[in-house]
Amino acid sequence: MHARAMISTHPHVRGQTNDALIRCIEDCYDCAQTCTTCADACLGEGMVAELVQCIRLNMDCADVCTATGAIATRRSGSNEAVIRAMLEACATACRLCAEECEKHARMHEHCRICAEECRSCEDSCRKALQGLHH
Amino acid sequence: MHARAMISTHPHVRGQTNDALIRCIEDCYDCAQTCTTCADACLGEGMVAELVQCIRLNMDCADVCTATGAIATRRSGSNEAVIRAMLEACATACRLCAEECEKHARMHEHCRICAEECRSCEDSCRKALQGLHH
Amino acid sequence: MHARAMISTHPHVRGQTNDALIRCIEDCYDCAQTCTTCADACLGEGMVAELVQCIRLNMDCADVCTATGAIATRRSGSNEAVIRAMLEACATACRLCAEECEKHARMHEHCRICAEECRSCEDSCRKALQGLHH
Amino acid sequence: MHARAMISTHPHVRGQTNDALIRCIEDCYDCAQTCTTCADACLGEGMVAELVQCIRLNMDCADVCTATGAIATRRSGSNEAVIRAMLEACATACRLCAEECEKHARMHEHCRICAEECRSCEDSCRKALQGLHH
Repeated sequence: MHARAMISTHPHVRGQTNDALIRCIEDCYDCAQTCTTCADACLGEGMVAELVQCIRLNMDCADVCTATGAIATRRSGSNEAVIRAMLEACATACRLCAEECEKHARMHEHCRICAEECRSCEDSCRKALQGLHH
Repeated sequence: MHARAMISTHPHVRGQTNDALIRCIEDCYDCAQTCTTCADACLGEGMVAELVQCIRLNMDCADVCTATGAIATRRSGSNEAVIRAMLEACATACRLCAEECEKHARMHEHCRICAEECRSCEDSCRKALQGLHH
Repeated sequence: MHARAMISTHPHVRGQTNDALIRCIEDCYDCAQTCTTCADACLGEGMVAELVQCIRLNMDCADVCTATGAIATRRSGSNEAVIRAMLEACATACRLCAEECEKHARMHEHCRICAEECRSCEDSCRKALQGLHH
Repeated sequence: MHARAMISTHPHVRGQTNDALIRCIEDCYDCAQTCTTCADACLGEGMVAELVQCIRLNMDCADVCTATGAIATRRSGSNEAVIRAMLEACATACRLCAEECEKHARMHEHCRICAEECRSCEDSCRKALQGLHH
């Protein structure tokens, strides 16, 4: 992903990149793809009825991550209150999705990888939030 | 929009619809379309350089509304913490977009309509949040 | 939905709205919401394992409709080849989702309504395509 | 991005990954982020009025790439006609966006990188389409 290279060319950034935020943007896009896969892989399991809560959290997490990645990418004008609210929503969505996926991680490899990715994205959201505070 | 008819047929709802939430879902989809139009209409104005902040807030608001509408639509399993966080983020995005559009409302009819739609969606998000509290 | 009122204020439109396209935009947003509901309602049914193909087509259809609605909304600059390709993809996604939902329409009211909405959106996409040809 | 690791765990895939399609999925998510950045960076340039067509193509391309990435990710059930239509729409959106960005590539580094990313994604879509034909 070329997030850093692209964002560093933005006329309002000019090389002064916020590294925690860029890491978070990359994790949001990765996590959106991972959660979309996990929802669909759960749907394909024979025991799909036991994975309904997992599929639901995966779909919500993918939607929040996609929106957060796009919103955090924009640097024209300013909209820090919305970035902050979305980073918080995204950290919550990732945490809840990770907690559910962890319950199925021994049975389903897709849930194991997805839980890791969600934890990583949750952590990136929190660090990006801290980076906005000072 | 058939949001009420559809959601009332959900096996976990069975007619016990949350009317404030359904109104909010409809407003989120409407507001996403309206903000997408306003961003693009601002982009087409001769004075586009003065509308950069407006375009940015419009694009962010469209992204938040689209994600919030989809997440609030789902009733399988439960994910109330994320719905709540998204409703709060959406109310904030709508409020900030409305405040900016209101500055251009006398000059640009699309900003005037968009400001109204954002205020309506902000209000629906707050009422849906209250409906989740009790 | 305020699609017509909004688009008619666009500086590159100035009242010369393409009514078939506006109808299509409204149907795309409606159909996105309807398919998101149907996917989730299917997921909540006890017989979810028999509805996997339906859920998958619903999720794809919601994604295509959301993208098509946003792209068809924009009037600044021009991008007719992409609008055309998306309207064709959307008509196909809606047709396939309708055909699958129709199989479950007697059993599940959400599938019955969703099939109707998808047929309506397919029809709107085709009429919008014809409106672009002349 | 963990697209390959995730998709290889899908119960309907079981290690038989379609490498051209996975490469395409990764490029779609990357290109969505790149086009979102380029649209916003163009918006921040002093000469924004000359970049309206570029911004519009960037926004459309981001929307098509996001939808195509999600739809091509799903392996439960089958929906090849829609995947095919979206890969074709995505190749067209990427080609048109690349052609426009190339006009501004000497002036704006974000357009130069974005054009390259769009060409790469266009190529991946075409190879994925070929991979579906046999």
